[in-house]
Amino acid sequence: MSAKIQAAILGSTGYTGFELFRILRKHPNMKPVKLYARENMEGKQQDLADVYPHVGGEEALPIEPFSWAKLHQAGVDLLFLATPHEVSRELAPDGLMRGLRIVDLSGAWRLKNAAHRKVYGFDDVDPATTEQTQQKAVFGIPELHEKEIANAALVANAGCYATANILAIVPLVKAGILDVEHGIICDSKSGVSGAGKQPTPKTHFVEVADNLSAYSVFHHRHTGEILEQTGLKSSQLIFTPHLLPIPRGILSTIYVRLNKKMDNSEILKLYREFYTGRKFVRIFPAGKLPQIQYSSMTNYCDIGCTLAEDGKRLIVVSCLDNLLKGASGQAAQNMNVMYGWDEAAGIAS
Amino acid sequence: MSAKIQAAILGSTGYTGFELFRILRKHPNMKPVKLYARENMEGKQQDLADVYPHVGGEEALPIEPFSWAKLHQAGVDLLFLATPHEVSRELAPDGLMRGLRIVDLSGAWRLKNAAHRKVYGFDDVDPATTEQTQQKAVFGIPELHEKEIANAALVANAGCYATANILAIVPLVKAGILDVEHGIICDSKSGVSGAGKQPTPKTHFVEVADNLSAYSVFHHRHTGEILEQTGLKSSQLIFTPHLLPIPRGILSTIYVRLNKKMDNSEILKLYREFYTGRKFVRIFPAGKLPQIQYSSMTNYCDIGCTLAEDGKRLIVVSCLDNLLKGASGQAAQNMNVMYGWDEAAGIAS
Amino acid sequence: MSAKIQAAILGSTGYTGFELFRILRKHPNMKPVKLYARENMEGKQQDLADVYPHVGGEEALPIEPFSWAKLHQAGVDLLFLATPHEVSRELAPDGLMRGLRIVDLSGAWRLKNAAHRKVYGFDDVDPATTEQTQQKAVFGIPELHEKEIANAALVANAGCYATANILAIVPLVKAGILDVEHGIICDSKSGVSGAGKQPTPKTHFVEVADNLSAYSVFHHRHTGEILEQTGLKSSQLIFTPHLLPIPRGILSTIYVRLNKKMDNSEILKLYREFYTGRKFVRIFPAGKLPQIQYSSMTNYCDIGCTLAEDGKRLIVVSCLDNLLKGASGQAAQNMNVMYGWDEAAGIAS
Amino acid sequence: MSAKIQAAILGSTGYTGFELFRILRKHPNMKPVKLYARENMEGKQQDLADVYPHVGGEEALPIEPFSWAKLHQAGVDLLFLATPHEVSRELAPDGLMRGLRIVDLSGAWRLKNAAHRKVYGFDDVDPATTEQTQQKAVFGIPELHEKEIANAALVANAGCYATANILAIVPLVKAGILDVEHGIICDSKSGVSGAGKQPTPKTHFVEVADNLSAYSVFHHRHTGEILEQTGLKSSQLIFTPHLLPIPRGILSTIYVRLNKKMDNSEILKLYREFYTGRKFVRIFPAGKLPQIQYSSMTNYCDIGCTLAEDGKRLIVVSCLDNLLKGASGQAAQNMNVMYGWDEAAGIAS
Repeated sequence: MSAKIQAAILGSTGYTGFELFRILRKHPNMKPVKLYARENMEGKQQDLADVYPHVGGEEALPIEPFSWAKLHQAGVDLLFLATPHEVSRELAPDGLMRGLRIVDLSGAWRLKNAAHRKVYGFDDVDPATTEQTQQKAVFGIPELHEKEIANAALVANAGCYATANILAIVPLVKAGILDVEHGIICDSKSGVSGAGKQPTPKTHFVEVADNLSAYSVFHHRHTGEILEQTGLKSSQLIFTPHLLPIPRGILSTIYVRLNKKMDNSEILKLYREFYTGRKFVRIFPAGKLPQIQYSSMTNYCDIGCTLAEDGKRLIVVSCLDNLLKGASGQAAQNMNVMYGWDEAAGIAS
Repeated sequence: MSAKIQAAILGSTGYTGFELFRILRKHPNMKPVKLYARENMEGKQQDLADVYPHVGGEEALPIEPFSWAKLHQAGVDLLFLATPHEVSRELAPDGLMRGLRIVDLSGAWRLKNAAHRKVYGFDDVDPATTEQTQQKAVFGIPELHEKEIANAALVANAGCYATANILAIVPLVKAGILDVEHGIICDSKSGVSGAGKQPTPKTHFVEVADNLSAYSVFHHRHTGEILEQTGLKSSQLIFTPHLLPIPRGILSTIYVRLNKKMDNSEILKLYREFYTGRKFVRIFPAGKLPQIQYSSMTNYCDIGCTLAEDGKRLIVVSCLDNLLKGASGQAAQNMNVMYGWDEAAGIAS
Repeated sequence: MSAKIQAAILGSTGYTGFELFRILRKHPNMKPVKLYARENMEGKQQDLADVYPHVGGEEALPIEPFSWAKLHQAGVDLLFLATPHEVSRELAPDGLMRGLRIVDLSGAWRLKNAAHRKVYGFDDVDPATTEQTQQKAVFGIPELHEKEIANAALVANAGCYATANILAIVPLVKAGILDVEHGIICDSKSGVSGAGKQPTPKTHFVEVADNLSAYSVFHHRHTGEILEQTGLKSSQLIFTPHLLPIPRGILSTIYVRLNKKMDNSEILKLYREFYTGRKFVRIFPAGKLPQIQYSSMTNYCDIGCTLAEDGKRLIVVSCLDNLLKGASGQAAQNMNVMYGWDEAAGIAS
Repeated sequence: MSAKIQAAILGSTGYTGFELFRILRKHPNMKPVKLYARENMEGKQQDLADVYPHVGGEEALPIEPFSWAKLHQAGVDLLFLATPHEVSRELAPDGLMRGLRIVDLSGAWRLKNAAHRKVYGFDDVDPATTEQTQQKAVFGIPELHEKEIANAALVANAGCYATANILAIVPLVKAGILDVEHGIICDSKSGVSGAGKQPTPKTHFVEVADNLSAYSVFHHRHTGEILEQTGLKSSQLIFTPHLLPIPRGILSTIYVRLNKKMDNSEILKLYREFYTGRKFVRIFPAGKLPQIQYSSMTNYCDIGCTLAEDGKRLIVVSCLDNLLKGASGQAAQNMNVMYGWDEAAGIAS
């Protein structure tokens, strides 16, 4: 076994940061992970158990005020940024300069195309350095970019909706069987933890319960990720997110048209071959479709499909847990690839 | 005010039957409604409060074993069939012969096209009479068939998914602005009461909670209703139902392409004009979309839409309560039209 | 029918204010209700449909910045305060001086005992006037204080938990059959809307869903109301609230010990006699207990009970909808009593 | 490490059987577990993935028709019965005679007292053998009966409600600080998976959602377990189960009276000492109470408490996951003790 590494999480009290902590604390290749925060510290040390009373037990889990000096002192090799987009955008270049490897769970570094990046409204202080950093950043879906991730200094962990849709669409695009001109529709539905831990009117229990709503229609931030990773043009993709009254899980119903008649078993074979050897993508057999419960609390992305009788209209259903394969599980998987470990190391399924 | 009528419900202990009872008991034009059942009676009289303990209070609400003789004796004018499809298929011709007017809440009489009807697997004993009855049956969405309903002996109350999608699509089809060849996709999500009161593995709480699943992909029974009412061909429509972890409510996300560039306000104007004077269709203003909560516990069908920047790709969101506008509320609305009353009489909103 | 009155709501965008508006707008004895707000107005007029897009339809529902002058101009007879406790505490004395009748939905005026009131931390500017107002205030449960409410200038609408528990306990206390020294335990569970519309970490969907938690153990604000209305001493009552993962509804499981052996039918008879003629308390028959669903979306308080074989240990279950019988429905019922109308006027059940 | 054992599950398609399978398949000391069924097999072999499509992946998970011969052939050492009570009652004596060790997850063997057992209505064919088996059975809560479990041939895995309440009450009883004559009240609330996988009207999604109901008041089957394990008399205990609208998790609010004044820290110290060295009981610090989410998906039983100002009235809150510490997790923990392994081996927390 390789030597253990020292990782740190900035932002461990949010949902993705906490979920990541729960994975890393049991990972066989990790020294006890260090926790840092930038806000609400007021000089005082916090403990993770102040926020999640069930986590600690006897063990202290201190959260320290973040500084580069502290990270250096603590011998941190790898920094996970579970921070807001703008914070990640500000900190990553510095971290790289200091020789750290970084996995960023925010949307700060996922998009190569400046036009796509506009939705974030970044106001970069040092555009030149930022652009350099941007070019180094590797998009973090191990099933698609394993080699680049293995060598990456900065991995931009993919978005939750983006992962569910990209993993379902890319094999079809790569196989050249899509009528891309006809357009692809991703009708996606997500649990509420995808919106983060900050209370808002939209995530208030009473507003979400017994409800379903579409939001950010034609304008969701993950659209750029899907476009860049699939090579589709904006005019060829519609992505519609919906807010489900459940805590976690995504199901995306994807409508595509094939450019030739096929049968369902050919499609399933194509998916299976594309993901041969990958541990965290499951292709469902004919006649069975993924459901949110099946992948909930796991790092799997589940994919299944049904073809219309005309052999051309295909519905693909893709599911994952937005906090695991859609965020922290995938972050750990990216780390595993970065350090040459088994991609599933330490990730319970 | 017109004279009060005597209505009866066959099947008052199911969700739609019970919801209908709750409307009719407060309707200003109704004598106390009579309740009948065909099953589980064993000669004994039941009371609705045996099944719904909160409904009765002091008042007795007897459910009597069904027979035509009893209906005749009780002076029943109008019979609501809240029965399984095959039961409605069997009973309606007899009822019409006996001079009753009938509103059928099942799928038995909704489809003119025999090919569409195949999904029900009806095995009609007397095909000639059945066909005559079928031809008399009027499809029960008052916003679209008011005159026929006013004169109908048999109203085939529309399906819940069907109503949500038809009310959203028909105005666009009638306006001739759809690129129908490109295809229309109805990605629809429904609460569990749409599946009825009978416990099944699929409606078990643990299987539905924290979950979402697509089902009957390419094969749901309501597809025929949407096709017949919109005039679309089977190759032009995809309708995908999903089971939501909520008790009631439908949201349908509908993807269409226009055959010319338009702007959103033109679409909204078109909808508003189409539904001028109708009390139970609400068109949402630009920038606002319906959510399930908004129409839940009401008889409204809420419609809103968003147009892509290209002016051609349109997303329509349609919501209703599957037990009210999608079933029992609409049944009462159909009754109101049949008897020349205000369409909203007795229907709380 | 009596002349219509002019009512106003201050605070119509919260859950109780909005629910109240929905009742009053259909009430047969009401002119169109006026809406006012104190906050977030910035001089601009708001519309209720800005917050609840489904409410308006064609009709404008303006919310105006609150001032006494405006209320006077508008000819307001009756003011509903759906405001925070401190706001109600500040405004009610002024309103009374100006000749208005007031129904306050907050906790500001419910408690006669200053010790009980401490939990609110009121810092009254003019203690003498405030005390006068306090003495005038009538506790707003019509089943218990009908005559005082009929003549009241200020009705302090009862708390939601308080109503559920008081209506269940008072008949037993009045009958003298309780072993009060043994102590009474109210294990109460409420849906989230009881906590109001303001987003907080505790009402964030992800924190509430799939969860249950006890809170304010031994210290909830409604304890004082239960004590004052039942005449119990603090040492004789334990009231433990719990937060349920549902939007609305309360169920309270109440444990008491009788001071003599009885049988269940005697207890039920006692309850039925106590509430004879009351429209909004339903006593469940032997063998049936209330459930939250039964009274949800109604103004009923449902009460049922089961006696242990020893004839002394009694469990009473009491349910109501916290936004209706626990708040706005009861407020309308109080209004009906204040004006001598049928207590159920305008209140759908 | 000790040699691996061969375990088998009879009844792997129910919720507890499946959960147990998920634990055992990753347990370091287990050969691949064998699955058997008694019903619905019709001679055909089934696969667990037919019922749980997400479980299998490439691996076959055959379920074979149960017979003692097959178990013998397969070299089974340890048999888990995840079967209905009557089936466990019938099979366990045979299994023991054949030299198997057995962990029974049903209620068949938990109760020594024949009077308590009456609620199950067992009709034992061979009362003498059955009684012998009964006397051998060890009640399966490792924190209380570790030594007996280590040597047991038959472990009667404790009920879910019973475990939550017993673990909270026993330390207080053993310390002699309870006023037992005053009575102990367990107001317990459980998620729906506790009722099993069989669809029934009571577990239908629509009946459970947005609801809460008390059931089996004064008569629930787990009452006997609590009485026998705590030594309380029937007249000293009230246990009231409620059905929560969530898939899994139990919270029990327990009301006791102390026989002397104490302070909260003394109680907490008492609990901590009682459970010193135990990995699956967590005592919450003063001011924090367990919530269902905290122990959900873990094998922990979480206990916290709050004392009234009088120093005598104590509320204890106990939480666990009914499928893990309340069933399959505890079954694995019992197995670990039976074989002398670390009690936490293979049980993710």
